[in-house]
Amino acid sequence: MPTETPRPLRADALRNVEKIVRAARDVYAEQGPEAPLDEIARRAGVGIATLFRRFPDKAALLRAVMEQQFTQQVRPVIDHALDDEDPRRGLTAVIEAALTSAADEHHVLTAARNAGILTSEAGARFFDALDPLVTRGQQAGVIREDLVPDDLKRVMGMLVSVLWTMDPGDGGWRRYVTLVLDGLSPAAASPLPNPAPPLLPRHRP
Amino acid sequence: MPTETPRPLRADALRNVEKIVRAARDVYAEQGPEAPLDEIARRAGVGIATLFRRFPDKAALLRAVMEQQFTQQVRPVIDHALDDEDPRRGLTAVIEAALTSAADEHHVLTAARNAGILTSEAGARFFDALDPLVTRGQQAGVIREDLVPDDLKRVMGMLVSVLWTMDPGDGGWRRYVTLVLDGLSPAAASPLPNPAPPLLPRHRP
Repeated sequence: MPTETPRPLRADALRNVEKIVRAARDVYAEQGPEAPLDEIARRAGVGIATLFRRFPDKAALLRAVMEQQFTQQVRPVIDHALDDEDPRRGLTAVIEAALTSAADEHHVLTAARNAGILTSEAGARFFDALDPLVTRGQQAGVIREDLVPDDLKRVMGMLVSVLWTMDPGDGGWRRYVTLVLDGLSPAAASPLPNPAPPLLPRHRP
Repeated sequence: MPTETPRPLRADALRNVEKIVRAARDVYAEQGPEAPLDEIARRAGVGIATLFRRFPDKAALLRAVMEQQFTQQVRPVIDHALDDEDPRRGLTAVIEAALTSAADEHHVLTAARNAGILTSEAGARFFDALDPLVTRGQQAGVIREDLVPDDLKRVMGMLVSVLWTMDPGDGGWRRYVTLVLDGLSPAAASPLPNPAPPLLPRHRP
């Protein structure tokens, strides 16, 4: 282990972090967004004091959970998509991976929203990764040229909103990924009547 | 006045209903979804007892408010769209009228959601009116043939969700109406990977 890194976690501490985050994902999936932290500690086989030593509050734990979701379920698809010879197929795969993750672990999203940490910042890494895929698609002529990064954020928001109108586990939302991506194709592009307005913090009714 | 109608409201009662609904729209717009009923009564120039005689609870008042919004802001656009020689332009106008209404009076939507009456049923009349426009567009070859009525409901839900990412008053959401309608065009239509899944009651995180 590199001793020059500031305050590295020891191997057993790292294992505890992993176990707690994995247990949190299971417990949220089973019990919903109000899943109690002591049940998460119990499932991870650690004491509640250990949990709080690693994650001083629920927000910190939820951030780690979302980090693990992204690293395990979305990041590999992004890496693969950048090598896909078909930029639209790559972009579709990434959007579908993100929606699958959102559908599978929607209680985590709810808990994150309740904790006030589901901000545009939380998605920044995802969108930073998406931008080069869009640019590649535009260069290849399969994504409309007038699409800007904020549009992608709204498109993802629209697709996430559709998950909650169905049983998200059955994959029917893929229909709407296709419908929306068809709208991003230059083949049907109409002139856009307005520039993309500034993204405001969500103030939904 | 037709005397054979069951329990017709007298002219002064009808005027009170009109005044109360109009006042409710103003007061919700100014004060937000928790606007108190006694302020609405005051603004309408009636006593609270009169308000409750016409609207036994808040849900009844909100239903009347949404009815008036629809009748005044959306219905005329639907009637006009059915005569528009360009079916896509007609459909766009109707969707934009509905979104304008939602944007202008979003506190009413919030109050309706809080009161548990913002169901798919509440939108049924709107979607019943939209269906012939879609069918006309399909017959004219400007709307993709694989689009089904439940898709339109989800498309509207997606577009409403985009309103809350911006100042809805500045009309920037029209950009997304165009993007999404381009996806409904046959010009860019890809095969849809799934049938439209059954619409479930909204269970958003």
